[in-house]
Amino acid sequence: MKRDSDCIFCKILDGKIPANKVLQDGDSLAFMDIGPLADGHVLLIPSEHYVTLDEMPAESAAAMLKHLPALTRAVQKVTGCEGVNVLQNNGKIAGQLVQHVHFHIIPRDVGGAFQFNWPAGTYPPGRAESLAGAISDAL
Amino acid sequence: MKRDSDCIFCKILDGKIPANKVLQDGDSLAFMDIGPLADGHVLLIPSEHYVTLDEMPAESAAAMLKHLPALTRAVQKVTGCEGVNVLQNNGKIAGQLVQHVHFHIIPRDVGGAFQFNWPAGTYPPGRAESLAGAISDAL
Repeated sequence: MKRDSDCIFCKILDGKIPANKVLQDGDSLAFMDIGPLADGHVLLIPSEHYVTLDEMPAESAAAMLKHLPALTRAVQKVTGCEGVNVLQNNGKIAGQLVQHVHFHIIPRDVGGAFQFNWPAGTYPPGRAESLAGAISDAL
Repeated sequence: MKRDSDCIFCKILDGKIPANKVLQDGDSLAFMDIGPLADGHVLLIPSEHYVTLDEMPAESAAAMLKHLPALTRAVQKVTGCEGVNVLQNNGKIAGQLVQHVHFHIIPRDVGGAFQFNWPAGTYPPGRAESLAGAISDAL
């Protein structure tokens, strides 16, 4: 298993730091976020150390992320929350605080503290087509 | 294939509405968001109609989400963005605008318009343990 001995999530995976675990298998671990944005905030992480999502093999991502539907269901059932955000941040600018890939499962309710804006823009003619072609070619 | 004839994303999947496609296979489609939060904002959706993530079979989620690492890599390569948020919203309270599961891949840069707060809290003694047990039991 790929580990980083300085990584707090690797230490949780190795049992060196305690966590309130929800689910664990060979590919992934889910546990309660110690600094929750809402009651029932869960983290899902890969068992191997990757800093950002772009570093992960497709198969490892699939093996971890297959758990998202059941985790979302279970969090909603237990907390009774009205909605859920799934959020994963890559890079400091994007809000990443721990340097090991983690997906946040965040319960949402009216009056909840976690909020984001939605400054939807538009593309000038041709820009979206051009980006789609370039991104597709880069895959 | 499970479809909702009133769903705009199902219409895109069926070719009835155009989109700037990035990737498509039997399980999933990725295309440019028509109302981007940043240049290069991509959506990844399942080929079958599910309103929220909790409705999806684990295997369908895995088959779709295996594409996230490569999509994130490609978006970063093409846009040169500093970071990326992956965000999926379930329910109106959580910001869901289209009633078909979709993962946002959102480029982030200094000065970008998309922002969220991070009101991290703490649990009273015993609460995280209790939630972990209940969520684990509900899986």
